[in-house]
Amino acid sequence: MLGFPLLMKRIGLILKREKKEAVALARTVLDWAQKNRIEVFLEPEGAQTAGVPKLATPPDELKKRIDLMVVLGGDGTLLAAVRMLLGSSVPILGVNLGGLGFLTAVSTDGFLNCLELTLQGKSKIENRMMLTAVVFRGGKKIAENYALNDAVIHTGQLARMIELEVRIQSDKVTHLMADGLIFATPTGSTAYNLSAGGPIVYPTEEVIVMTPICPHILSNRPIIFPADTEIEVKIGEMGERRLLTLDGQTGVSLEPGDLVQVKKSVHRTRLIMPPDKTYYEILRTKLSWAER
Amino acid sequence: MLGFPLLMKRIGLILKREKKEAVALARTVLDWAQKNRIEVFLEPEGAQTAGVPKLATPPDELKKRIDLMVVLGGDGTLLAAVRMLLGSSVPILGVNLGGLGFLTAVSTDGFLNCLELTLQGKSKIENRMMLTAVVFRGGKKIAENYALNDAVIHTGQLARMIELEVRIQSDKVTHLMADGLIFATPTGSTAYNLSAGGPIVYPTEEVIVMTPICPHILSNRPIIFPADTEIEVKIGEMGERRLLTLDGQTGVSLEPGDLVQVKKSVHRTRLIMPPDKTYYEILRTKLSWAER
Amino acid sequence: MLGFPLLMKRIGLILKREKKEAVALARTVLDWAQKNRIEVFLEPEGAQTAGVPKLATPPDELKKRIDLMVVLGGDGTLLAAVRMLLGSSVPILGVNLGGLGFLTAVSTDGFLNCLELTLQGKSKIENRMMLTAVVFRGGKKIAENYALNDAVIHTGQLARMIELEVRIQSDKVTHLMADGLIFATPTGSTAYNLSAGGPIVYPTEEVIVMTPICPHILSNRPIIFPADTEIEVKIGEMGERRLLTLDGQTGVSLEPGDLVQVKKSVHRTRLIMPPDKTYYEILRTKLSWAER
Amino acid sequence: MLGFPLLMKRIGLILKREKKEAVALARTVLDWAQKNRIEVFLEPEGAQTAGVPKLATPPDELKKRIDLMVVLGGDGTLLAAVRMLLGSSVPILGVNLGGLGFLTAVSTDGFLNCLELTLQGKSKIENRMMLTAVVFRGGKKIAENYALNDAVIHTGQLARMIELEVRIQSDKVTHLMADGLIFATPTGSTAYNLSAGGPIVYPTEEVIVMTPICPHILSNRPIIFPADTEIEVKIGEMGERRLLTLDGQTGVSLEPGDLVQVKKSVHRTRLIMPPDKTYYEILRTKLSWAER
Repeated sequence: MLGFPLLMKRIGLILKREKKEAVALARTVLDWAQKNRIEVFLEPEGAQTAGVPKLATPPDELKKRIDLMVVLGGDGTLLAAVRMLLGSSVPILGVNLGGLGFLTAVSTDGFLNCLELTLQGKSKIENRMMLTAVVFRGGKKIAENYALNDAVIHTGQLARMIELEVRIQSDKVTHLMADGLIFATPTGSTAYNLSAGGPIVYPTEEVIVMTPICPHILSNRPIIFPADTEIEVKIGEMGERRLLTLDGQTGVSLEPGDLVQVKKSVHRTRLIMPPDKTYYEILRTKLSWAER
Repeated sequence: MLGFPLLMKRIGLILKREKKEAVALARTVLDWAQKNRIEVFLEPEGAQTAGVPKLATPPDELKKRIDLMVVLGGDGTLLAAVRMLLGSSVPILGVNLGGLGFLTAVSTDGFLNCLELTLQGKSKIENRMMLTAVVFRGGKKIAENYALNDAVIHTGQLARMIELEVRIQSDKVTHLMADGLIFATPTGSTAYNLSAGGPIVYPTEEVIVMTPICPHILSNRPIIFPADTEIEVKIGEMGERRLLTLDGQTGVSLEPGDLVQVKKSVHRTRLIMPPDKTYYEILRTKLSWAER
Repeated sequence: MLGFPLLMKRIGLILKREKKEAVALARTVLDWAQKNRIEVFLEPEGAQTAGVPKLATPPDELKKRIDLMVVLGGDGTLLAAVRMLLGSSVPILGVNLGGLGFLTAVSTDGFLNCLELTLQGKSKIENRMMLTAVVFRGGKKIAENYALNDAVIHTGQLARMIELEVRIQSDKVTHLMADGLIFATPTGSTAYNLSAGGPIVYPTEEVIVMTPICPHILSNRPIIFPADTEIEVKIGEMGERRLLTLDGQTGVSLEPGDLVQVKKSVHRTRLIMPPDKTYYEILRTKLSWAER
Repeated sequence: MLGFPLLMKRIGLILKREKKEAVALARTVLDWAQKNRIEVFLEPEGAQTAGVPKLATPPDELKKRIDLMVVLGGDGTLLAAVRMLLGSSVPILGVNLGGLGFLTAVSTDGFLNCLELTLQGKSKIENRMMLTAVVFRGGKKIAENYALNDAVIHTGQLARMIELEVRIQSDKVTHLMADGLIFATPTGSTAYNLSAGGPIVYPTEEVIVMTPICPHILSNRPIIFPADTEIEVKIGEMGERRLLTLDGQTGVSLEPGDLVQVKKSVHRTRLIMPPDKTYYEILRTKLSWAER
């Protein structure tokens, strides 16, 4: 049993169910938890897969009961956990199975050690800015979504451009014909934003990065707005289908004339940091950033 | 009546039927043709719209009967004409209605003058290289298509990467996770290729440009292959839908394991050049290339 | 005479002496000032050129005597004024003669109106972050300089790379072979940083942008650090000459083994904003940013 | 002694004299040559360093006497050999000591084997296009130089832009303010051109790549000209010093009003290709092109 007083005693567990290693590691966590008198809660399907149906907890309940969420998977699984915990202040410890993630930066090797440090209150927790994207149609709010990485407005059909008008406080910022437009948080700057040519932003900063996807004009360039900027995007007539996608998951179908408002969210995500790695080390290892 | 001996006496006419100016200009051409004893042929729907149903000619017949194809529309209408004329050596005179196109570089003002010069054999005709894209599934050819601008393999769902393996004569060239991959002709280098960050190539050159769309890795960069390169792209498992799109129009749905072979086509497109504009002038005017 | 109570009554004047319009506009300001009982001070050479040798004031004195500095020239003249005012809180009103500057955003037309608003305390003043670059050789500080736009470490001989090791708190960030490395403030993000491929950052933000100049490796990408980051650059052996240049002006010759520390300065520059233009309007007008 | 009839019996040897491995490998070659009755010629300084002063041959004589030039060094040493052999058709076999070069693609391990294949006429020889850059001042030719990689017009003082007007057959192509302008051959596309953001071109192609270095405007983009294009660059007033540099070595100081003509050279470089590596393999290994 852990010899130190614990600040956290109830943990949630989310696993990438299709991945054998995730299930095996979940079993390890469950054994370790029992030995150390830590309560564990799983969402119903995960509980089933891990062979502990009694620990199944409805997603809504989960965030009220736990002190810490452990994610066994990749960045995609962690983003699902972020949506599940929205509105709570439960921190997330992401374990990467295979490869290295920006969000799941703890390796399976160092995981139990990191978990123990976390329960003892000795891990570093970073507050990460999130985005809110609100869709208005005919002046009426029809959708409101959240993103830890990015809110992307894009064509539903690649190679068919869409037309967007970007404004801030009624002032025109730019008019754009492109495959899409990415609004990324600093955390999301190393995700889709990077593929589209955007800059890397240190993840605890608070700014909004706007990067076009395959813009029709040569003079475009990513721009970084202050975090308190409320950006409005008016959807034009061009193209056939247009979508708003949050964190590569949640999608809203957009129509010409729709207004998408993108701004800093009141919500945040709290991430447990690995004790032994700097952000720059992850950049170099995962992206070969500035490495040969 | 034209005072010079004419080398071409039968012209085809394709128009963007939704565009009023195209229909009006078609009427002007028809009047001019009658006056000058030039025969005109239109595809059935265009003949209907222009009010000359008697001149309707099936697309298959069209390319056999005409000496010159006149396109009244934009680059999209011209690309449709290219597909219609495939396999013939009929040159195309593209007139741009509104704006300026790379393929339709003649303006409505200078059009009749350019047409007369062309019929007299005094216009410059450029032979433009095309691409062939052949799709093999289970070793069997299932599709073969042609493109004047580009053959693009892309995700059917933006922001969901696909996985591609590029080989030349069995040698690995690169392995790629991206939104897609563009193979452009020099003519197409100023189309989608440019939006994705590719270089401009003088249009009468003969090379194949390969440019990734939002690649997952930082070290990617466009590459230019010799025209006689046969490039093979093996489609990976990643992603949900994958498409091959030719000139932004014709599409083939791809499956994991499919092989797409991209190479220089035996077909060419012959374009009438405007008498008064250099390529660099079009670059500066249309793209504001290297202009403030 | 101005009908409003004035918050500022003594102005400094710096002009681009080679420019006729600057000298003419200086005469206009001097007349206006006399009429409105505003005291004017000029640095000795400017006073000579403007034909008012009696108003000559040593640069050191200038910043103690004035409430406002008026710059008649371009962004380069304004950067010289910034160096002259270092350590004071005197705001700067930059008038652009010909073209449009990011720092000198007031046009000659609107200038007197903007000046009067400023003296009445009605203009918006923006505090702009600056950088400090300290050079250590053999552990000893040998130079300390300031920049409003950028601190650039670069080869003294273009096309001959230099080698740099970037560290933060002893942690390696990256190792670089390149023509140089730019550290830009948000204000400087639209200067040299933009030419080298860096992102645009809204100018009142507080971050440090690091952008390589012609890096040897493909995987490089600009990165944005928090404003409180102390960045250390170790100069390598490669190349023949290496320089540190501040705001494109002040230069320090660097040697292998030197350590350059770049960080947010304790100093700031206070800029008077034009009453009628947004930052995005300047971006579009001056850079044709995202415009055709 | 080599058991096959030899097509080449006299080889030149150039070595990077500061490099121990080069000197050691030169000794190996000399021993091997004596055993196989191959004549070896060295330029005087190299002969001295290798301890064989009797084999010293003036550079001018060298290219007349030899059938093959062997280069022991890196890409820089090979470029020096190219200049020495200008006007002859002697092929070059480049051996890379440490790392991998694009020009010196044969490793020390495989070297003797590759040399024997070459002497037997069994190696693949590639003809590589070169550039000629002619400088005119006041209508008079003042310099004419050659390059295998690139001809670069650049500021003598980084971060101080120069102004260039590019024309083809008197037609304006573009007007540019930048740190410089690169004209690269396909061979040189992976050298400085790549650092400045230019595309990779398969090395046996015949085109001219023009890529700006840190251009002042956002809308710039590399462009690829046909090989028979004669490009004229007029040097503007801006800046203090301007240089023309060929292959990163030979330099010509330029003045405002000078005209630099860049075109395909009548000379070519003939390179021996390694038997066991494709170009794409070198791209991936040396540049980590498109690799993580």
